[in-house]
Amino acid sequence: MVSKAAMSDIVCSIARTLDVVGERWTPLILRDLFVGVNRFEDIRRDLGIASNVLTARLDALRQYGIVEARAYQTNPVRHEYVLTEQGRDLYPVLTMLISWGDKWLAGSTGPPALVVHRDCGQPTSGVVVCRDCGAPLTADNVYWRHGPGARRGPGTMLIGDHLESAP
Amino acid sequence: MVSKAAMSDIVCSIARTLDVVGERWTPLILRDLFVGVNRFEDIRRDLGIASNVLTARLDALRQYGIVEARAYQTNPVRHEYVLTEQGRDLYPVLTMLISWGDKWLAGSTGPPALVVHRDCGQPTSGVVVCRDCGAPLTADNVYWRHGPGARRGPGTMLIGDHLESAP
Repeated sequence: MVSKAAMSDIVCSIARTLDVVGERWTPLILRDLFVGVNRFEDIRRDLGIASNVLTARLDALRQYGIVEARAYQTNPVRHEYVLTEQGRDLYPVLTMLISWGDKWLAGSTGPPALVVHRDCGQPTSGVVVCRDCGAPLTADNVYWRHGPGARRGPGTMLIGDHLESAP
Repeated sequence: MVSKAAMSDIVCSIARTLDVVGERWTPLILRDLFVGVNRFEDIRRDLGIASNVLTARLDALRQYGIVEARAYQTNPVRHEYVLTEQGRDLYPVLTMLISWGDKWLAGSTGPPALVVHRDCGQPTSGVVVCRDCGAPLTADNVYWRHGPGARRGPGTMLIGDHLESAP
């Protein structure tokens, strides 16, 4: 999705995260890794994408520290790809993409997949709550303030003037 | 990010959601709308993107029912863009992109922006919890099952064989 030259200098955690996970196909590659489709050839067949695209995406994810390659076979060497701690921490992002798609785009046939919370044992979905008080965070009950790393520049030329007040 | 032809037929809520919000720049446009940068020219100046790109992204978001255009001036007519209910419901997706970026990519200077929960009054961050029991959902305590809308096809050629078991 994102050309490095275009977005990586934007001082915004959304832009920075998109640099890592926003490339075309990357979220679906991460989906496959989360559920255990983690050999190159399996991911390629699952998604139906070109080998060179998949190679590029996996290389980028390795450089970002999101996945590690492990040899599961020698002669010839074959690798599987495993999410690092940083990569596994993307699960909440993926699950909220799923929750939104399930809610708004699944249509009458229903969700393609169900998330099961082991502690409950039943299908569930994710809700984003406040780390402090546990109540849901929504567009209606939050606002954004300048953080210590705020800086005006391309991608944030005006937005700073709108922070520290209700959206 | 996503060419419609390539991804919209994938029976996956991640792929479907990316069709709506995964185009390049779209998440940052949504960010601007959430904080109140909602006039065409302001968004364009904030992001530093070409007018034709912004027009295309806003048109797509209107077609998907994510934003509505409202005239705030006549002669000449000028529009501002307002998130619909479906659009505002994307806030949890955005906030988890922010949380991940703040945690892993903000560096020593700290987060560019702070999310304040009005009910607490203090900066916070989002945590994804189980809708049923309220405990955090992580890659370690969930697995995925087939849903009623599951179907094998491009983008889901193998993944179904890996569901209904631990990742």
